[in-house]
Amino acid sequence: MVPDLDYPEVARRAAAFMEERVAAAGASGVVLGLSGGIDSAVVAHLARRALGRKCLALLMPNSDFTPDSETADGLAVAKSLGMEHETVQVGEISRLATGGRAAGSATDERAAGNLTARIRAALLYYEGQKRGYLVAGTSDRSEYLLGYFTKYGDGAADMLPIADLYKTQVRALGRHLGVPARITEKPPSPHLWPGHGAEAELGAPYGEIDAVLSWVDGGRAGPARAPAGTVERVERMMAGTEHKRRMPPAAELRACGAAPRG
Amino acid sequence: MVPDLDYPEVARRAAAFMEERVAAAGASGVVLGLSGGIDSAVVAHLARRALGRKCLALLMPNSDFTPDSETADGLAVAKSLGMEHETVQVGEISRLATGGRAAGSATDERAAGNLTARIRAALLYYEGQKRGYLVAGTSDRSEYLLGYFTKYGDGAADMLPIADLYKTQVRALGRHLGVPARITEKPPSPHLWPGHGAEAELGAPYGEIDAVLSWVDGGRAGPARAPAGTVERVERMMAGTEHKRRMPPAAELRACGAAPRG
Repeated sequence: MVPDLDYPEVARRAAAFMEERVAAAGASGVVLGLSGGIDSAVVAHLARRALGRKCLALLMPNSDFTPDSETADGLAVAKSLGMEHETVQVGEISRLATGGRAAGSATDERAAGNLTARIRAALLYYEGQKRGYLVAGTSDRSEYLLGYFTKYGDGAADMLPIADLYKTQVRALGRHLGVPARITEKPPSPHLWPGHGAEAELGAPYGEIDAVLSWVDGGRAGPARAPAGTVERVERMMAGTEHKRRMPPAAELRACGAAPRG
Repeated sequence: MVPDLDYPEVARRAAAFMEERVAAAGASGVVLGLSGGIDSAVVAHLARRALGRKCLALLMPNSDFTPDSETADGLAVAKSLGMEHETVQVGEISRLATGGRAAGSATDERAAGNLTARIRAALLYYEGQKRGYLVAGTSDRSEYLLGYFTKYGDGAADMLPIADLYKTQVRALGRHLGVPARITEKPPSPHLWPGHGAEAELGAPYGEIDAVLSWVDGGRAGPARAPAGTVERVERMMAGTEHKRRMPPAAELRACGAAPRG
């Protein structure tokens, strides 16, 4: 089972963390990407609480893939919080970067989806640097442990306010913070290509996945409370995405002392 | 003093590292950005040695800033190695991403320069993913320790073949590998804005900087063999860029156990 938490205390700690990171960096505020999904809605609420008006929300729809309802949900969050927000259409930038070529295969389509996620990161840092703001990442612990994010795309951030909470806990935190049910209860999706749904791609609902992740985090004590297939799938995804949770490895070369001469 | 190394052995180990990383990831080869500078020329030579024809070099000039001579030098390296290469003009993509606005301040200009570096990373990953190639980073140890790179831009890679070598050692490795003197001896520059030179921006030549870095790496034993101003500047840069060499920090929230009920 995924542990229940003291959500008022979670919200206080997460907001204090954001404020501390900004102060420690000598920055002025935070910028975050608002997608219309639960994770970014929760981070927007926490940012508003931590930093008041010193927040910028960027909406970065790709008109090829992003349902209008997602952008509308993101906008509603920014407006309800009175948060400064800008909308940047990212589809044209992505198309220019791919040379205007249509995806010829599923691999190309995924590569283009990840490209879009990386261009979003570049835009967040661009708007952030102009204002002296740090980039707040919106990954939750489920996505983080599964490696279900784009390396250097949505994985690119200066701080991770909710990366210690499983997706189901983020939903509960969202309910506590007053995020609309339309957002807390919708099926999660990165929307990196048409019809892209997280739970179909992951092969299990987050309730099952989080039960496995919580069991792994607890040292695999006792039986996992999830179907065996889900346990295997989750363990495989965690192992195969270790590289996304580490700094890139460097060759060790300084030990090659100079050859003796003469 | 910066230690002299056994460069034939360094080249062997760096190439073996690249081959191992590709094999461990189940990938097919590597993609790298070729700028015309010494670091990427050396990584291209090592990649060719490690992976034969399974390498792609991307040249990504920004016509606003990149001198034609740099692109010509990069092309000459790819051609001399018989390496597959493509040229992508990155200026138009950057201009579209910045909304076509001219930089209004030095901060804006830097933000746009970093945006360009991040778009280059997105392009490397895009071309890499299409081919099943890993991204080889080209940072050297001097840049890495000074934080003299764009976070999630040229810092974005799956492996760092030369991040254990100071800039002056990379130059020596380049001479050993047969990189043309025009490249090994040119003044280093990231070319992120017009007239951008590394040593002017860093405030000291790499010979002095590397002497300090080598002294720091050696546990600060004895006196630093560099002017006091350079020692201070290097120590300050290292301290202020620690965040670029770590994964983003996450708020610790799972300790917030559920409040007792009833």
